[in-house]
Amino acid sequence: HSSETELREQGAVFMPRFDSAGLVTAVAVDHASGALLMLAHMDAEAIAKTRQTGFAHFHSRSRGRLWMKGESSGHVLKVIEIRVDCDQDALELRVEPAGPACHTLAPSCFYRRIEDDGSLARIEDA
Amino acid sequence: HSSETELREQGAVFMPRFDSAGLVTAVAVDHASGALLMLAHMDAEAIAKTRQTGFAHFHSRSRGRLWMKGESSGHVLKVIEIRVDCDQDALELRVEPAGPACHTLAPSCFYRRIEDDGSLARIEDA
Repeated sequence: HSSETELREQGAVFMPRFDSAGLVTAVAVDHASGALLMLAHMDAEAIAKTRQTGFAHFHSRSRGRLWMKGESSGHVLKVIEIRVDCDQDALELRVEPAGPACHTLAPSCFYRRIEDDGSLARIEDA
Repeated sequence: HSSETELREQGAVFMPRFDSAGLVTAVAVDHASGALLMLAHMDAEAIAKTRQTGFAHFHSRSRGRLWMKGESSGHVLKVIEIRVDCDQDALELRVEPAGPACHTLAPSCFYRRIEDDGSLARIEDA
């Protein structure tokens, strides 16, 4: 381990490791149930806005802009806690969702499982 | 919605949406506790190997090769269920970990939270 790796993994300094597009991956988890809700991307602006407002903001890769989750649907994600992973290229947003997290109106975006035969089956509770 | 989007979001056909590097993001979750364990990437080979063996395999972007989580440490992840998100560019691996999921020997890679002052604090239970 280099001292930079050591610092990044064990240190108390938040130093997000952005990819070449300036993004880290963010995973939203329901703080109460622990359910995995959705995955999106954040740039420095989205991280700053999320910490400032207490509501999850992301960077849309397709639209190339900052967006607040729920800005049109009202299904915002209130951020209770932000966690960072060992190498600081991923964030866990522990949230309180105001409604379905998925744009399909499923509670979570992960509403299907892969069956043994390779087909997808809807999960009852997701 | 185009019919392709409809099929991808509502259909029963697993058709992962790989990025330009041939990868989807995979999130490993402890099936018993619901804890978020780690985040990695999978290509078609890693997905096939994971489904075939029942143990989580990923594609290392830095080493440019397939690896089985725990291949050197023994801390493998037994896969109980694989879920896919709405647009099929992310997978949730519901797993039973054989040991600490993080290479730092923390149970989860997400062992620090961002405090209000922007510093990182170790989480007791992670």
